[in-house]
Amino acid sequence: MHGRVSTSVNEHAPTMRQHVFRMLETAREDDRKSRFVDLCLIALISSSVAAVILESMPSVEARYGDAFSLFEVFTVAVFSVEYLLRIWTAVEFDARRGLSPWQARLRYMASFHAIIDLLAILPFYLLLFGAFGNVDMRFLRAVRLLRVLKLTRYSAAMNMLLITIRENGKALAAAFLILVTVMLMAASGMYYFERQVQPEDFGSIPAAMWWAFATLTTVGYGDVTPVTNGGKVFGALITVVGIGMVALPTSILATGYAHQLKLSTTTYRNRADEALDDGIIDEKEARDLEELRVDLGIGKHTASQILDAGMVRRALQGDQVRPGPVCPHCRKALD
Amino acid sequence: MHGRVSTSVNEHAPTMRQHVFRMLETAREDDRKSRFVDLCLIALISSSVAAVILESMPSVEARYGDAFSLFEVFTVAVFSVEYLLRIWTAVEFDARRGLSPWQARLRYMASFHAIIDLLAILPFYLLLFGAFGNVDMRFLRAVRLLRVLKLTRYSAAMNMLLITIRENGKALAAAFLILVTVMLMAASGMYYFERQVQPEDFGSIPAAMWWAFATLTTVGYGDVTPVTNGGKVFGALITVVGIGMVALPTSILATGYAHQLKLSTTTYRNRADEALDDGIIDEKEARDLEELRVDLGIGKHTASQILDAGMVRRALQGDQVRPGPVCPHCRKALD
Amino acid sequence: MHGRVSTSVNEHAPTMRQHVFRMLETAREDDRKSRFVDLCLIALISSSVAAVILESMPSVEARYGDAFSLFEVFTVAVFSVEYLLRIWTAVEFDARRGLSPWQARLRYMASFHAIIDLLAILPFYLLLFGAFGNVDMRFLRAVRLLRVLKLTRYSAAMNMLLITIRENGKALAAAFLILVTVMLMAASGMYYFERQVQPEDFGSIPAAMWWAFATLTTVGYGDVTPVTNGGKVFGALITVVGIGMVALPTSILATGYAHQLKLSTTTYRNRADEALDDGIIDEKEARDLEELRVDLGIGKHTASQILDAGMVRRALQGDQVRPGPVCPHCRKALD
Amino acid sequence: MHGRVSTSVNEHAPTMRQHVFRMLETAREDDRKSRFVDLCLIALISSSVAAVILESMPSVEARYGDAFSLFEVFTVAVFSVEYLLRIWTAVEFDARRGLSPWQARLRYMASFHAIIDLLAILPFYLLLFGAFGNVDMRFLRAVRLLRVLKLTRYSAAMNMLLITIRENGKALAAAFLILVTVMLMAASGMYYFERQVQPEDFGSIPAAMWWAFATLTTVGYGDVTPVTNGGKVFGALITVVGIGMVALPTSILATGYAHQLKLSTTTYRNRADEALDDGIIDEKEARDLEELRVDLGIGKHTASQILDAGMVRRALQGDQVRPGPVCPHCRKALD
Repeated sequence: MHGRVSTSVNEHAPTMRQHVFRMLETAREDDRKSRFVDLCLIALISSSVAAVILESMPSVEARYGDAFSLFEVFTVAVFSVEYLLRIWTAVEFDARRGLSPWQARLRYMASFHAIIDLLAILPFYLLLFGAFGNVDMRFLRAVRLLRVLKLTRYSAAMNMLLITIRENGKALAAAFLILVTVMLMAASGMYYFERQVQPEDFGSIPAAMWWAFATLTTVGYGDVTPVTNGGKVFGALITVVGIGMVALPTSILATGYAHQLKLSTTTYRNRADEALDDGIIDEKEARDLEELRVDLGIGKHTASQILDAGMVRRALQGDQVRPGPVCPHCRKALD
Repeated sequence: MHGRVSTSVNEHAPTMRQHVFRMLETAREDDRKSRFVDLCLIALISSSVAAVILESMPSVEARYGDAFSLFEVFTVAVFSVEYLLRIWTAVEFDARRGLSPWQARLRYMASFHAIIDLLAILPFYLLLFGAFGNVDMRFLRAVRLLRVLKLTRYSAAMNMLLITIRENGKALAAAFLILVTVMLMAASGMYYFERQVQPEDFGSIPAAMWWAFATLTTVGYGDVTPVTNGGKVFGALITVVGIGMVALPTSILATGYAHQLKLSTTTYRNRADEALDDGIIDEKEARDLEELRVDLGIGKHTASQILDAGMVRRALQGDQVRPGPVCPHCRKALD
Repeated sequence: MHGRVSTSVNEHAPTMRQHVFRMLETAREDDRKSRFVDLCLIALISSSVAAVILESMPSVEARYGDAFSLFEVFTVAVFSVEYLLRIWTAVEFDARRGLSPWQARLRYMASFHAIIDLLAILPFYLLLFGAFGNVDMRFLRAVRLLRVLKLTRYSAAMNMLLITIRENGKALAAAFLILVTVMLMAASGMYYFERQVQPEDFGSIPAAMWWAFATLTTVGYGDVTPVTNGGKVFGALITVVGIGMVALPTSILATGYAHQLKLSTTTYRNRADEALDDGIIDEKEARDLEELRVDLGIGKHTASQILDAGMVRRALQGDQVRPGPVCPHCRKALD
Repeated sequence: MHGRVSTSVNEHAPTMRQHVFRMLETAREDDRKSRFVDLCLIALISSSVAAVILESMPSVEARYGDAFSLFEVFTVAVFSVEYLLRIWTAVEFDARRGLSPWQARLRYMASFHAIIDLLAILPFYLLLFGAFGNVDMRFLRAVRLLRVLKLTRYSAAMNMLLITIRENGKALAAAFLILVTVMLMAASGMYYFERQVQPEDFGSIPAAMWWAFATLTTVGYGDVTPVTNGGKVFGALITVVGIGMVALPTSILATGYAHQLKLSTTTYRNRADEALDDGIIDEKEARDLEELRVDLGIGKHTASQILDAGMVRRALQGDQVRPGPVCPHCRKALD
């Protein structure tokens, strides 16, 4: 049943581009070849990140530097081919929206995932062509670590986090503004109390910001602490009052994430139940469900579980014949 | 449609005072002149705050001190004019409540925003007229940083935080009382255990409060820690038990903020849906919605999004023909 | 209207004992004499706690020691009279439950508030009669600080916190068991990794518990940190995994408090609405509401606000004549 | 009534194996013999854990080393017998599922509780037979501390935490992946800014991970802090942004635990209410309720409280005569 759902999107024989698109796209549970491509890419991304980390250790770098360089060339080659193929096949993704091929490709290139893919290979080419002359190249090496974000494509939870951040963008921005305001006030108050006793650490408001950051986030390194009585009392008061406001972004993110998690599965379940209402998921319903799944950032495995559960529920309801009238509000039998 | 909503508040030609009021008030999306005034004021507030921060750095102050003084004079001049104009036009805001002009103005002057506006300019005049003789003037400089709070006028999220604090005032006050109680007990216990070994840091209960603050907020500077076994065991126990209670204000604020965020949009959406019930927002409905929007602290952009969504929903419901009678509130069939 | 609600509990002239009971009990908004007694007691409790704190400062103690001793005698005298009167009048509180006077008094003496009242005066008498011989008397002085808990009687929020702790007792106990388990495992792991390099701080599992406490609560003093690579990796892993579990008590308390806050007001509002159904609160309803208010730990002020709001709501509903049928589920008009 | 519920699972005389099974299983409130066995085992587990902790203190070990060794032999003997008996009687637990005795036993041996039971005794036998030659035996001593997890069998709350972790496994794994990603980025950024000034602490990305861990969890030891301006600014920014994401696992766990707590009791209450619908809990209903209770990880005491409350509720409803027909699910009038 589920197999029919998955393959019903395109009835006719797929073109070369459609075939490549399906290979690169996050695999459905039942598509073994596409799944193999995914696993290879995940392994390569992970190895590449591990290489960047190991390379940063002087002793390892000294001994295996050449091997790392070779591996880097191989990695960038694969990622470059992947990037070009994804741009080429981006047309398939937006086929339903009636854009011209190049509009669809430009649109894809501006997406979060495409930018991450570009950042994964760009440093190599910039260094190769010496684009930055005598600028410190190690900065570009660090950029290679952003490759870890390529994994977001394969993790429904990371996708959901990205969605949460986007959805709560305004509230988060405001919370960060509040946070900066509280930190500014804490820093300027501390600057007033401590600048004469500790001119090194509290000699200006920007200098006092380091204390404000460490205190209001409750990190509390202890490398800079107030020593005057006034500073201690002010520091304790502003911290007790300010911690609540500094915790707002965390709270918004956590609430939003929990909400998103619940919302996505509920939405998908409802739509799936509607589609299952007649006992069968036809082609149009399957296509709609698939689009919804991608939009909601639900993993293929979770989606198939929801579909299966829906079918089980339907089967159970069929078994338990409900003769009497049903309460129209809580949908339970009334006899 | 949305344009008609915005301009329908006053039908007749506005007086000079009404015109100034509308310019100063946070601009509606479609009022370009008022929006320009807002952006200028936001830029000036931000620059002024940046100037206070930069001025605190001795090297910058030594080099650009005169420029900062000039900019300060200009800033205060603009903020003074703004303050006077806001008091003058305050009559417009409370026009509907039947107060005399001066009652309305005094009422406005006692509001949070007006006090912040006053604090933004007062230090300058006090220093100018030497009101404090030989008192340290730097304190008044720090007060200028409160100007950052002038931005709350333009941020719906900051407004919502102010509302959250006001609404949960009693619970927050009680939570702070609990917090002080727990800190007092932790401090007095530690004073008992450590005062003989560390007379410097735990020689009195007020002295031990610094440790209690740093520990129970989990900041944990480490500049003062218990060294006796009794002090360590007591410190660990009171911290494990007390952290939960100290976290209550943060929790109340976070819960209240999330609740407020949800409540505001829900309230506005419900009212908008009611207003849209007949398919059109007439003048009275528009005026009511605008008043509600201001009271709830919802941004103009969000409000317009909610209105648009309501119209889309109405259109969609028109498509899906519903045969039987429907309860207009819970949108369920009634037969 | 509200006045009639308050005084309708006892119709006949109150006896002396009933009068004293009413004076000592937390005052109703409209009972000026009882409110005055409350304020005097609150002021005395606060002054007494302040005295304990100030007395702990050697310089203050040296100068005002005698004054503090006199004030302590006065405080204990008042609190002793208050304690005896409360035991005497405890009969009134439990009058409705059919207990004998002494059963009611013993029952009261075992309550949380009575024990706090006893602890507020006991240290004085124990020191007076030299009950402890040559034991350090300062310990008993610290016990006097528990007087701050006498304030819980007057704070609805503190009462609610006590209820929250009692209600979630099992979950909290389990969460603390989990916390101790995680800390034990962290400590014993660290003991294994660090005991040879830092025998002072990690020489035994109990010694390593200090590090485990400071790390897993995220206090992080930094007086004891792992230095071996194994210890650092293990410490980071157990902390990342364990923090979530250590935060459980805080989370349970915060969730429970929010829940309690909502529950109490909802329950009282529902009962008040039922009582207001016929437009009037008769004697029996008033007595029931008062009992409920005490049980829920809602303040008298909040309760009267809820009652007022209910009356306003009723009045509003009376104005807006609703002719048509009403949806039996969401209680809104259906036309 | 409740007694009949408990004993109605097996009508016929129990076999020896059934008797032992019932003794070892967490006792029902009314089974005094089984409860005694439970309490003995809980006491032995606690003593054994205490012994491991005390033994780690050199002074205690030197003095009571022999006594600890004897106690360890006794403990392992009891736990070994317990383990073997549990495997033997595991057949009873899975009797209803139609597995062969050895299938049931293997299935039990792979369960969480059986593995913990094995880990509690395995170190002793491995050391006895010298399985590890000259490897550091202290590691195996630390493993004995896992015995504390044997207590989870007797704590409904710990069981619920295990269920919460299992249920939210995917979300937690994703949150940890996010956490590692954020820490990696923080570490590699800091490595870039600080590696030349502090080659000891930030000389490689793995070295910088220690700072990233201490900062992003807000532990903040302060043993390693950035000193360059670039490092401080980057550290503050990544921390403020990253803390929210690092707090996700805690948030998921806390939300999941609260949800689980509510869900379990609600589910059990609903089923109990259904069973009580006819005023009596018959044998089949009792067996179903007992199975449900075990599956949900609800303690026997809580379960009996829920059943009692359900009976009280039924009795109360009998008093309050409800005239019209009532929906038995949402308990609202239907006319």
